[in-house]
Amino acid sequence: MLSALDKQLLEKVADLHDVPKGAYNIRRNGEGVQRNTTANIDIVTKKDKPGIDILVKPGTKGESVHIPVILSAEGMKDVVYNTFEIGEDADVLIVAGCGIHNAGGETEQHDGVHEFFIRKGARIRYVEKHYGEGPGTGKRVLNPKTVIHAEDGAVVELELVQIMGVDDTRRDTEITLADRAKLVVTERLLTDFSQKAASGIDIRINGEDASAQVISRSVARGNSRQEFLFNLDGYSRCRGHIQCDAIIMDNAVVISTPKIGAFCEHAQLVHEAAIGRLESQQLLKLMSLGLSEKEAEDTILKGFLK
Amino acid sequence: MLSALDKQLLEKVADLHDVPKGAYNIRRNGEGVQRNTTANIDIVTKKDKPGIDILVKPGTKGESVHIPVILSAEGMKDVVYNTFEIGEDADVLIVAGCGIHNAGGETEQHDGVHEFFIRKGARIRYVEKHYGEGPGTGKRVLNPKTVIHAEDGAVVELELVQIMGVDDTRRDTEITLADRAKLVVTERLLTDFSQKAASGIDIRINGEDASAQVISRSVARGNSRQEFLFNLDGYSRCRGHIQCDAIIMDNAVVISTPKIGAFCEHAQLVHEAAIGRLESQQLLKLMSLGLSEKEAEDTILKGFLK
Repeated sequence: MLSALDKQLLEKVADLHDVPKGAYNIRRNGEGVQRNTTANIDIVTKKDKPGIDILVKPGTKGESVHIPVILSAEGMKDVVYNTFEIGEDADVLIVAGCGIHNAGGETEQHDGVHEFFIRKGARIRYVEKHYGEGPGTGKRVLNPKTVIHAEDGAVVELELVQIMGVDDTRRDTEITLADRAKLVVTERLLTDFSQKAASGIDIRINGEDASAQVISRSVARGNSRQEFLFNLDGYSRCRGHIQCDAIIMDNAVVISTPKIGAFCEHAQLVHEAAIGRLESQQLLKLMSLGLSEKEAEDTILKGFLK
Repeated sequence: MLSALDKQLLEKVADLHDVPKGAYNIRRNGEGVQRNTTANIDIVTKKDKPGIDILVKPGTKGESVHIPVILSAEGMKDVVYNTFEIGEDADVLIVAGCGIHNAGGETEQHDGVHEFFIRKGARIRYVEKHYGEGPGTGKRVLNPKTVIHAEDGAVVELELVQIMGVDDTRRDTEITLADRAKLVVTERLLTDFSQKAASGIDIRINGEDASAQVISRSVARGNSRQEFLFNLDGYSRCRGHIQCDAIIMDNAVVISTPKIGAFCEHAQLVHEAAIGRLESQQLLKLMSLGLSEKEAEDTILKGFLK
């Protein structure tokens, strides 16, 4: 049922060599093609709009849900709405992501709207990889919107990765944290050629003793453009830390706007951002070991984005 | 000619116990009341709008210009436009600032628009202090706008201080830097009660090997609100660094939005921001030495804003 091309895309976005273990739903060119549910994780097709409800029973531990999306049909514009209900004290891995293969002249686009309800004490690790490829001149566009409601004591880890090949992306992530909820966001972004990427992360800490950490690392090459709009608001006794590091090369542009707002005297918020070049000393060292300048650059960038 | 009240305000905003040495222009309630020029520094009243032109001859070294503004007339709303022409290789100290004494029920307001042309190789240190006082219920409002053009190799040091007693301020500072120009901005801000302060600093680095550094320190107490909007854009081989530290107390709100934009691969830009409480260990230490909690707080805050 899955072609060689499908499998290649799935490997890029979800590290899958075949259909995954556990619960999964594979969406191809706007349609669900394979699904599996488990005793604890149900996946139900939405009735009112395209998309699925992922229902994880309270207390479910050590299970995973894979919901990759792949696009390869010319001119395909896919929009999907997925809702995640993560029951109390559950602890699950969710692997999403989208791969686009564009062989034609028209834009292929996937917009995914994900909403998470992380109930009391539940934990998720959410991994989302975006990838584009194909010989076509048509654009590969990905616009994910992610909304997360973390209840008391919930722990949310997000890994957002855009590997390569995406021409245009607008990523919006909104998170609210209740008492003792904990958020860690790791973002990795590489743009090249004339690609454009905008990432907005909006965090509202409402709960006492909640914490949020965002680590964003990016590399902008060629004529690409990256824009980061981070907003961290603390309304309670809480801690927040945003760290953005960008490497800029060639004729690329990087704009970073991190806003922090303290609306409570017990909110402790820190932001750090740096935009700069590759360290020339590191480059020289690697080149003295026999690497070409290009190879040395790639080695450093790979380490930086790891 | 200057009353005891005038002298008190002058001391607060310009550290003056009497008329200063060198060039000066004292503006009181919308009118110039005293002026002195020197062989190298001329002060000329503008013909088209309220304000003065300050003309510093090329090569002038070690001289100073004081241009304090004081307001004490009820309901006074003063707007002034000052233009500074700092000749090549000059090196001067400019002390501005505004003090308001409000004894009535109406708003007293001063809006100062300052434009600086810092010619090749010239240096300025510009000190601007804002201060409000008086038993009246009327507001004390200060809205300074400062525009600075720094030519090749110019060195610009800005010290922007709002000591106390200003109910509402909107500060806008715009700077462009040419080749090898250097900017250092130090901002100190304290708000209390229901005071509001907004500070926008917009720096555009156009020149090769130019550099900009902004150090902003603030304390927000009571129900006060502070907003910082910093924007640092690098269009050349340059370095920029913004550092904002805010201490938040009581029911105050602090919002910090520092934007950095790299439009050249050789632009190196760093931003750091932190909003937090007073260190409780420092407080306890001072209190163990016999200070009251209030005294201990004041001691730490004074050190922080120094």
